[in-house]
Amino acid sequence: MLDVKIYDTTLRDGSQGEGISFSLDDKIKIARKLDYLGISYIEGGWPGSNPKDLEFFQVMRDYNWENAQLAAFSSTRKAGINVKQDSNIKALLESGVKVATIFGKAWDFHVLRALETTLEENLAMIRDTIVFLKENGLQVFFDAEHFFDGYKNNPEYALQVLETAAQAGAECVILCDTNGGSLPWEVSAIIDQVKQKVDKPLGIHTHNDSACAVSSSLIAVQQGCVQVQGTINSYGERCGNADLTSIIPNLELKMGKKCLPPGRLKRLTEVSHYIAEVANMPSSNSQPFVGHGAFAHKGGIHVNALLKDSLTYEHIDPEEVGNHRRVLVSELSGLSNLLYKARELNLDVNSYNAETRKVIKQIKELENEGFQFEGADASLELLLRKAFGQYKEFYQLKNLKIIMEKNEAGEIVSEAIVKLSIGDEIIHTAAEGDGPVNALDNSLRKALNTAYPEINAMHLRDYKVRVLNGNDGTAAKVRVLIESANQYDKWSTVGVSENIIEASWQALVDSINYLMMKKQLTAMPDNN
Amino acid sequence: MLDVKIYDTTLRDGSQGEGISFSLDDKIKIARKLDYLGISYIEGGWPGSNPKDLEFFQVMRDYNWENAQLAAFSSTRKAGINVKQDSNIKALLESGVKVATIFGKAWDFHVLRALETTLEENLAMIRDTIVFLKENGLQVFFDAEHFFDGYKNNPEYALQVLETAAQAGAECVILCDTNGGSLPWEVSAIIDQVKQKVDKPLGIHTHNDSACAVSSSLIAVQQGCVQVQGTINSYGERCGNADLTSIIPNLELKMGKKCLPPGRLKRLTEVSHYIAEVANMPSSNSQPFVGHGAFAHKGGIHVNALLKDSLTYEHIDPEEVGNHRRVLVSELSGLSNLLYKARELNLDVNSYNAETRKVIKQIKELENEGFQFEGADASLELLLRKAFGQYKEFYQLKNLKIIMEKNEAGEIVSEAIVKLSIGDEIIHTAAEGDGPVNALDNSLRKALNTAYPEINAMHLRDYKVRVLNGNDGTAAKVRVLIESANQYDKWSTVGVSENIIEASWQALVDSINYLMMKKQLTAMPDNN
Repeated sequence: MLDVKIYDTTLRDGSQGEGISFSLDDKIKIARKLDYLGISYIEGGWPGSNPKDLEFFQVMRDYNWENAQLAAFSSTRKAGINVKQDSNIKALLESGVKVATIFGKAWDFHVLRALETTLEENLAMIRDTIVFLKENGLQVFFDAEHFFDGYKNNPEYALQVLETAAQAGAECVILCDTNGGSLPWEVSAIIDQVKQKVDKPLGIHTHNDSACAVSSSLIAVQQGCVQVQGTINSYGERCGNADLTSIIPNLELKMGKKCLPPGRLKRLTEVSHYIAEVANMPSSNSQPFVGHGAFAHKGGIHVNALLKDSLTYEHIDPEEVGNHRRVLVSELSGLSNLLYKARELNLDVNSYNAETRKVIKQIKELENEGFQFEGADASLELLLRKAFGQYKEFYQLKNLKIIMEKNEAGEIVSEAIVKLSIGDEIIHTAAEGDGPVNALDNSLRKALNTAYPEINAMHLRDYKVRVLNGNDGTAAKVRVLIESANQYDKWSTVGVSENIIEASWQALVDSINYLMMKKQLTAMPDNN
Repeated sequence: MLDVKIYDTTLRDGSQGEGISFSLDDKIKIARKLDYLGISYIEGGWPGSNPKDLEFFQVMRDYNWENAQLAAFSSTRKAGINVKQDSNIKALLESGVKVATIFGKAWDFHVLRALETTLEENLAMIRDTIVFLKENGLQVFFDAEHFFDGYKNNPEYALQVLETAAQAGAECVILCDTNGGSLPWEVSAIIDQVKQKVDKPLGIHTHNDSACAVSSSLIAVQQGCVQVQGTINSYGERCGNADLTSIIPNLELKMGKKCLPPGRLKRLTEVSHYIAEVANMPSSNSQPFVGHGAFAHKGGIHVNALLKDSLTYEHIDPEEVGNHRRVLVSELSGLSNLLYKARELNLDVNSYNAETRKVIKQIKELENEGFQFEGADASLELLLRKAFGQYKEFYQLKNLKIIMEKNEAGEIVSEAIVKLSIGDEIIHTAAEGDGPVNALDNSLRKALNTAYPEINAMHLRDYKVRVLNGNDGTAAKVRVLIESANQYDKWSTVGVSENIIEASWQALVDSINYLMMKKQLTAMPDNN
């Protein structure tokens, strides 16, 4: 039904990107999200290479995938041993996957220099491994590592590697530009040659060292490849792998090649940003198709023409990939989202009254300071309700102090002292914590929980910090996002400051205030 | 002498990128640096569109360029007026440039919808403008805006636009993929058609909305284009322009097309980073050729092979573009990465001695705690040198205290008090800062800079925070990465703790210690 199968290797090749380190929990979240997007194959890891990957496969063994099939990666058997004795292959079988992707060397230079074995033994390693896995009932894909470099140096041997894999029973033979050095027309010409020799479905796997990874993948599909390997957001070693967030919409929208189930392309931007969050990697603003700025227009001429017809300066409709147009320097950007949210809360914004104008202005200012309300619904709701007079302060902060001390032995004590008033009553208390933010949280709860016992049942679930402008060193601005929950609900709040403690404080205060406000709003009918 | 002329539009099209705003001084710095790289044409701006651009041309009028020619950008005359009366064209002449780049619409839809004029008048606007500028002694390039979209919709008219410009005397006709929607094989096929109709040198100008801008530019050169327009680091509207930092090395190293004077390619990485600094844009770590991570190796297999021969996992020698290889030490990499790093430092790890075993164990433990050394070369080097007895402490910390206070008016004061000893001397001092981390940094520098004045010349360039296990709320562990620099070098350090201030402190201390150690190591020969 699909013209091209997408094979995602974010969890394996992507994890080799600098700065990326996935926990088991991260891997599970990402795999589920890839399934939600409609990816055909998800490479979960290399079970033989590290215990975390093997654990992932064991945890996901009985997961009910909607679209995806889980694949495990492995080298062929090592030189000079029996495939049944190979620890990588044993771990692969242990992982319980039904699809194995085996990589072998297709460049004679690598066989001789890196593997330090003979060209013949390399072919035997490939053959034995594939035959053995097929006997064990697995579907096998063969990644021909360094294929294009190998072909350029010794085409006979490179083709022999592919033929060996095909004859051994590999369901798909994937041509890899492992070092990312090939140019698109080289990829095209070489695939032309391969097609004449190898009678199996072909796949493509490229890296972006020459800034041509997406083009080469698309050209390979033009030439008949039916599997495309890549990663979300181009994560991967050195300059990254081919970016699936560009390949998928190019295939679907421009080349008429179906590679996702119907209706899924609209999830692309969401999935890209979600995975960036889990990986804690900054999203590239200018990333094609899914970047926050991919449809942002700044030039006056552009904006003027766009007002007449959006086709004038957009190659696709941003909605098709779940992205949206932004007009920079326009007072109107973001307004529709805001109005949408306000209507949800039954606030009277339809008449574009004074409160509406005031809150739009305020949000503009806060966004200029670095606030972002997309991930902080509770802070936005507080802001809106305050603007429309639906919020009264529960307490007044008088003074807040943090003291952190580290002695010669390296012992650290963090202490927060808070002084606030509830009505006429002054509360002055203190608490310690694991670090200043935790001490703040503890002291604020201690000060408030007699008057507002509901906060005992809430807890903080997630705490994220992002540096907004890195180039000012330690005086850079930071944004803190906090996710809180109780047994009924989950909410997110935000704080921004050059002072990380102050940013954390803002988000903490919003988080607690939100809960107290919700309690009050639901209690209101009883009081009236 | 050059096969391809590079035309840089960082100062004009690049300045339309989100977050970019060049001052006059920035523009001068960038133009000089582009000349230093050996760019053939530098587009300085659009004199008719804003006074800052006109001022730039006036300031640079008598500048003694080594390689470059300065070009000014302008639209054609407006519809329905005489070219001599057109304010854009007047400003262009006033700018004093010898090269003008005139853009005109090559897409009938744009002529009718955006310009709201007739197809005939559009041709007259192009003709009149070019003829007039030629009469005034200028060299004229014609940017055929939206050419590829225009050709797809109305090939006859798009070609007529090119022919009009050629006949009017344009020295080069540049085919623009303004919306960035064309795929490389479309670009190739269309240029094939153009060559049969237009007997003038051709150029290419692409945008990266389909992630194919570099490939399309290279394919255009394969097809005979002799001018390539783009920007440094891909700055530009939406997803950016074609990245010259990828196009130049691909042309020179892979396609054998000379586009820079001899010996200049080695300056590419430096120029890319310099312009990123001036633009105050974060450098992309994975940027092909020039990214800090473009030749960074993390996977253990890769590093193992690199130790045998660097060609195994590198498409070019990083030195050719002025970049360098980095080996990242991480849980994926195992021992080989560490050994590679240690050998770089001339530490005796080859014999797998007691120090080597100890330091491997120590790194494993630190990584389990959440340290990550792949982004923190300097912390790793400190650790290695300490293990091998090549580091002596410069000072002893006695006590450290942070006080942060916020009053009822919301005013915040952050203060750090540090007490340390250098030899027998006790130093006890304090400093304020924008937040506790900045206060720490200030107080530590203040305590040390009399004894170690070299720290005055260093500054913090980047500060990153990552929360390691989000689910413990504010008691979660955080990892802080700091990047520091002086005029000669750039280095990164790491700290991990449940206490963000403590994690920052660790990274700060490493950062300063690293500089002092480097100073001492280079000074050593003189002392012995």
